[in-house]
Amino acid sequence: MSTITIDDVKLLRFVEKVFTSTGLDAVDAHICADNLVCADLRGIPSHGVARLKRYTDGIASGLIQPNNRPEIVMESASTATVDGHAGLGQVVATFATRLAIEKAQASGVGVVTVRNSNHYGIAGYYAQLMLEAGLLGISMTNSAPLVVPTFGKEMVIGTNPISLAAPAGRHRPFLLDMATSVVPRGKLEVYNRENKELPSGWAVDAAGKTTSDAGLVLENMTRRLGGGILPLGGEGELYSGYKGYGLAVLVDILSGVLSGGSYTNRVYAKKEGKSLPPDVGHFFLALRIESFVPRQTFVDKMDDLIESLTRSARAEGEKRIFIHGEKEFERYERYKKEGVPLQKKVYATLQGIARDLGIDFE
Amino acid sequence: MSTITIDDVKLLRFVEKVFTSTGLDAVDAHICADNLVCADLRGIPSHGVARLKRYTDGIASGLIQPNNRPEIVMESASTATVDGHAGLGQVVATFATRLAIEKAQASGVGVVTVRNSNHYGIAGYYAQLMLEAGLLGISMTNSAPLVVPTFGKEMVIGTNPISLAAPAGRHRPFLLDMATSVVPRGKLEVYNRENKELPSGWAVDAAGKTTSDAGLVLENMTRRLGGGILPLGGEGELYSGYKGYGLAVLVDILSGVLSGGSYTNRVYAKKEGKSLPPDVGHFFLALRIESFVPRQTFVDKMDDLIESLTRSARAEGEKRIFIHGEKEFERYERYKKEGVPLQKKVYATLQGIARDLGIDFE
Repeated sequence: MSTITIDDVKLLRFVEKVFTSTGLDAVDAHICADNLVCADLRGIPSHGVARLKRYTDGIASGLIQPNNRPEIVMESASTATVDGHAGLGQVVATFATRLAIEKAQASGVGVVTVRNSNHYGIAGYYAQLMLEAGLLGISMTNSAPLVVPTFGKEMVIGTNPISLAAPAGRHRPFLLDMATSVVPRGKLEVYNRENKELPSGWAVDAAGKTTSDAGLVLENMTRRLGGGILPLGGEGELYSGYKGYGLAVLVDILSGVLSGGSYTNRVYAKKEGKSLPPDVGHFFLALRIESFVPRQTFVDKMDDLIESLTRSARAEGEKRIFIHGEKEFERYERYKKEGVPLQKKVYATLQGIARDLGIDFE
Repeated sequence: MSTITIDDVKLLRFVEKVFTSTGLDAVDAHICADNLVCADLRGIPSHGVARLKRYTDGIASGLIQPNNRPEIVMESASTATVDGHAGLGQVVATFATRLAIEKAQASGVGVVTVRNSNHYGIAGYYAQLMLEAGLLGISMTNSAPLVVPTFGKEMVIGTNPISLAAPAGRHRPFLLDMATSVVPRGKLEVYNRENKELPSGWAVDAAGKTTSDAGLVLENMTRRLGGGILPLGGEGELYSGYKGYGLAVLVDILSGVLSGGSYTNRVYAKKEGKSLPPDVGHFFLALRIESFVPRQTFVDKMDDLIESLTRSARAEGEKRIFIHGEKEFERYERYKKEGVPLQKKVYATLQGIARDLGIDFE
């Protein structure tokens, strides 16, 4: 697919302007723009500016209330529950992450669970905020139900990602950021566009059986006719699909139940055909490394851990064993220099948003 | 495979006697015996009394030091690092879990990381201890390297399990207890015994390529000739094997690096052909539910979450959608009534241990 390359700072300024024009203040607009552009810089375009219109539409429809402030509804030295009051996911999640950071810096650990938020972008963004504060960070969120449970055929659970960031010494940090589904919806869209057969174990049809027909699955998903994406581990029990299913529920319990919010298909629910506020839940855990082990010991061991993996013997024909985050950091550095590649279709959408709002775009 | 059924309390008393005869006091012997018999009661025989000989052998060889006491080497109101001093994994882990429970009850959260321990049995045992104390509990451990990283062919990472236990209301608790590998080693042994071809994506040969030959993989694993079990998600990137790989590293970071202990193939390492103390690491996180949300809200939402999954539409031909822990609780209740089925081979091993130690066994 052909792309147009754009300077990341230019892109950031544009997205900031879009958000301020919808009524956000400059600080919140920067948070949201930075989160989206960061996803593009890391090579996760499904969570980048391609999503901008969904946010502006959410604000226009009133499902996202960008000027509501997140509220701490319960709090102790190391814990908090935050009500996002339907604010922008990025703003709510950044607030909650900073709260977890403060608590970890003061007490060794910060645990913050969040209800009544919206889509918060990439999970790794918040784990990395904790990392930049010198901490070990974990970030999770529930999300719109697109995944079927093991032996099911109904989309009940989200792709519910888990992220962990940990500093190393001479190596780049470890940054895991993974959906608990076998693939994201975007992967099905790519296969559909390229007319490729889906590998067995990615998605199921309306009967709940694995299918190679990407178009059928996407159509069924949109119209909610049955079927959807499979959890990590695939169909049934042969490849332990119940593990991916279980991890998705783990995320729902920590993000949705513990916060007193929503979970499974209670997130992004509808009533009488009308969308309710999404009530997305998040979970953040920040750990102050020095409360457990001297920092130098930690980073030395991280370096050794990374090398024990990346320098181990490679399978026949393979050139490299990766560690999590490595590919994304390399892309980030390259795109910072060379510009961010945007799909032409995404570029055109941004031009459309610019026109509608009367903002300059390139 | 034919089995012999034995009353669980009889089995427990016998295993306690075995441990006291190796020098443990009654309290520690009970902890270890209860952990092993609990695994059998839940239908996880790979982690049950079948492992008893490995523990007694570990004690005999001096790699396990059953009379060393775990030591808190760093501590705050909500955090601690524990050195197990090569004690029995179950004793060390129970100590650390109780510490996490106390901290969570006093401050809302308890995070305890452990180094220099041994194999601690099933991860879910400790999550359930936290559950029984009214808490939400997470338990993880690293383990002997049996799993190859994505694109690798060397067993560098453990099957590193993750467990989470959370209470519900009218339903049984949610209890996830999963290895981060696609299958446990025991599954390969079953396929080998039954002369069945391994499904593609379970394990790789000495070249790092998926193979259907269970005997070959097991032989290569024992002699460490290359190859091993694949992470959850299978070979390469097609089914997101790097996610299972990433989760295993997450467990290693929290259990091994954060504790100042060992990780990846530094666990159960050898030096000049001689086994070093295994230096297994664990991680426990206990959360006091009432610090985040009223307990009644939590259990009501857990019931609703469970029903949203188990009552969702089933795939064609499927009779039931399960929630995690359900099968194990059902087995536990049945085996409590009907007795614990032990493989004849395991039964014979217990008879051998009884003979060697001069203890009565049935």
